[in-house]
Amino acid sequence: MPISETWLLPDGVADVLPEQAQVIENMRRQALDFLAGRGYQLVYTPFIEYLESLSSLSALNQDLDLVTFKLIDQISGRLLGVRADMTPQVARIDAHVRPIAGVARYCYAGTTLHTKPQGLAASRAPLQLGAELFGHDGVDADLEMIDTMLGVLNSVGITEKLHLDLGHVGIFRSLVKIAGLTQDQENHLSELYQRKALPELKAYTATIQNGADFEALGRLSGDLDQLVDNLSSEVRADADFSHAFDTLKSTVEQIQSRWSQVSVGVDVVELRSYHYHTGLMFAVYAPNNATPLAQGGRYDGIGEHFGRARAATGFSCDLYRLVADQFQTIEIVVAPAGRDADLLQAIESVRAKGQQVLQLLGQDQFDSVPQASHKLVKTDAGWQVQAI
Amino acid sequence: MPISETWLLPDGVADVLPEQAQVIENMRRQALDFLAGRGYQLVYTPFIEYLESLSSLSALNQDLDLVTFKLIDQISGRLLGVRADMTPQVARIDAHVRPIAGVARYCYAGTTLHTKPQGLAASRAPLQLGAELFGHDGVDADLEMIDTMLGVLNSVGITEKLHLDLGHVGIFRSLVKIAGLTQDQENHLSELYQRKALPELKAYTATIQNGADFEALGRLSGDLDQLVDNLSSEVRADADFSHAFDTLKSTVEQIQSRWSQVSVGVDVVELRSYHYHTGLMFAVYAPNNATPLAQGGRYDGIGEHFGRARAATGFSCDLYRLVADQFQTIEIVVAPAGRDADLLQAIESVRAKGQQVLQLLGQDQFDSVPQASHKLVKTDAGWQVQAI
Repeated sequence: MPISETWLLPDGVADVLPEQAQVIENMRRQALDFLAGRGYQLVYTPFIEYLESLSSLSALNQDLDLVTFKLIDQISGRLLGVRADMTPQVARIDAHVRPIAGVARYCYAGTTLHTKPQGLAASRAPLQLGAELFGHDGVDADLEMIDTMLGVLNSVGITEKLHLDLGHVGIFRSLVKIAGLTQDQENHLSELYQRKALPELKAYTATIQNGADFEALGRLSGDLDQLVDNLSSEVRADADFSHAFDTLKSTVEQIQSRWSQVSVGVDVVELRSYHYHTGLMFAVYAPNNATPLAQGGRYDGIGEHFGRARAATGFSCDLYRLVADQFQTIEIVVAPAGRDADLLQAIESVRAKGQQVLQLLGQDQFDSVPQASHKLVKTDAGWQVQAI
Repeated sequence: MPISETWLLPDGVADVLPEQAQVIENMRRQALDFLAGRGYQLVYTPFIEYLESLSSLSALNQDLDLVTFKLIDQISGRLLGVRADMTPQVARIDAHVRPIAGVARYCYAGTTLHTKPQGLAASRAPLQLGAELFGHDGVDADLEMIDTMLGVLNSVGITEKLHLDLGHVGIFRSLVKIAGLTQDQENHLSELYQRKALPELKAYTATIQNGADFEALGRLSGDLDQLVDNLSSEVRADADFSHAFDTLKSTVEQIQSRWSQVSVGVDVVELRSYHYHTGLMFAVYAPNNATPLAQGGRYDGIGEHFGRARAATGFSCDLYRLVADQFQTIEIVVAPAGRDADLLQAIESVRAKGQQVLQLLGQDQFDSVPQASHKLVKTDAGWQVQAI
C-alpha cells in the first residue's frame, strides 16, 4: 500500500470528526441518562466473546452469525467472535451473571462490528444503543419498551413527525399452525409477504390449505378490523391468534393515546427477524426513510441458551444513524500563554461556564488556532472574553 | 461447548455490571469534559482499519503489531486490524483528514483490543482515554500534556498521592551517538537499563567506548545534578545532550511547582517504548503500584507515515484501571403501575431531580425489584418518596 493510501478507510467505517463527535457524545449521554431515569441499569459488555457464546443466539437469529467477525484467541486457541449485536450479551448477563428473580432492566451503548453492512448506506460499525427488559411476558412490558424507545428519541431531540410500525409474529404463526403448513410453505409465504408480492401471493395461496386466510393476511395486513372480518371463523376462534391479535390491537390504542404526535400503523406480515422474535415487534421511522431509526420486539426464551429462559423485550438503534447530518460548530476561546495567577484564574472561570478555553503555547499567536471564535484579553476591567 | 459454559468469557475480558459501569461512565464524562474545557476536540476513530494503515505506525512501535488482532475484510478481501491503540488513528486524522496548519488538540475514549494482555493483570480490552497535541515541538507542549494528564486524573477524583516519573530518550541517544555504538551495543545497553542490572552494566560498560558515561547514566539515572557532574566533558558539550537534559530539568521544576502534591522523579534510563518516543516521556503512578495509571510522551514525526510529519505529544490511560475497585450503590425509586396523570407527573418530577424511577408493570409488587431503595406512595399530601 503506497503511503498516499494509508489513510484510506475500509468501506462502511468512518472517522467521526469533532463537529459531529460532539453531537453524538451529547446524544449518547442524553439517551443513557433518560434510560437510567427509568430504572434501566447500564452495563458494558465485552467486545469479544467465545464464538459459541455469541452464536448460541445465532441459532435463533441466523443473520447474526453471517455478520460476525471471527478471530483466533492466541491465549486459548479457540475461536472468538466480535460482537455484532449487544442484545445476546445482555441476555447472558441476565441469565447468568446477575440472575435477578424479578424484572430486570438494562441499557447499553457501544460499538458493534458487522462483516457486511446491514442495509443500504448502513455502517459496518454501528454505535448500538439500546435497552432490554427481562422477566415480564405481559403487554405492559411491550408498552413500556415502545414508550421507552420513543422517549429515547425524544430525549435526543428527534421530535419530527415519526411513524411507528407494529406487528406480531403470533398472528402469522397461528395461521400456519391451524393450516398445518410445511416449513417450506411457511418460508415461501414469509418471503412473499416480505416482498409485498400480492399477485404472486394470490396465485400461491390458491394452492395451499386455508389459502384465503393467508391471502387476506397479506392484502389487509395494515387494517386490523378489516382483517379480522375477512379471516375464517376457525382462525378467529383460535386462542393463540386471539392473544396475538388482542395484544397488537391494544398496543396500537395505548401507544396512539400516549403519543398523539406519532403516526401508528400496523403490518401483520412485516416478518423481519421472524425466527428471532416471539411476539410484538416494532420499528420507528423518520419521514420518507425506509430504514428504521430504532426497532425492537419480544424475544422470550433467549436466556435458554445460557441455561435460564426468560421473557424478554428490547429495542436498539444506531446512534450514528440518529445523528444523521447534524453538526455542531465548535467555539473555542483562545487565551494567551503565561502563568500569571490572574490569567489562570480568568481561564478557569470561563471554563467553569462550560466554554472551551485553549491556552496558547509559547510564542504562538491567536491565528494559530483555526477554530478560535473568541479570545481572552486583558482590559482595564480585568481579563475579558471578546469575539474574534 | 456445553450450555453451562456458554457464559464463560475469554481471559482478559469482562462484563462490567451496573454498580461499576456507572462509575466508569461518570469518569469518562468528567475526563472528556475536562479535556474539552482545555480545547481538546473529541474524535471517534474507527474500530477497524486496513492493517497497513495501523502498522505504518508499528514500524515505530514494534509491540503494537504483535498485539493487533487481524481480520479478513469480506468486502475488499484485504487484511484488517482491530485498533490496539488509538494514537496512530488520531495522528492519521491530523495528517490527512483534518490537516490544520497550526497546533491541533484532540481527545478520544474508546475500547481497544489486544491479542495478549500488556502487563500483569491487564485487560485485553482497555477502555483507552487520551489526548494528543500536534504541531508544537517546544517544552511548553510537553508541559501542557503532563499538566493535562494530571488534570484528567484529578477531574475523575484521583487525588491520592501520585508519583510522576519523567525521562527523555534524547539523553541516552546523544551518548550513543557520541560513543558511536553499534545497534547491537545500543540494544544490549537498553536491555540492561530496563532490567536495572547494575553489576552487569558495570562489567559491560568496561568493554565499550565511553563506557564510564553509560555506567554513570545507569547508576545516577534518578539524580540529574549528580549525573551531569559524572559525565564526560564531551557529553556535556554536546548540543543534543544539553537540549534533552535542559528540557528534562526544566520540566521537573515546572511540574513540581505547579503540582506540589505530586512527587516528581526522573529516570533517564526508563526506555519504555524507546523506539517510538522521540523526546520527553512521562508516567504517573498510584502509591505502591508498578503499573502506571497513565503515561505518554513525545513522538514527533509520527504523521510521516501518512504523508505529513508533525511534532506530537500525548498521553493515554485505561479507564478500567482508573476505576479499580470503585463501586456505586444503585438506588431506585419504585413507583406503582398506572397511568393516572397525578402519578405520572410525580414520577417525572422525581426523575427531574436526577433519581432513577422505575414504574412497576401490571400486577408486580415492590419486592419484585431487588435494587429498590425507595418507593413512591400516595399520601394525604400527594405522592411522596419513602425509604423502603
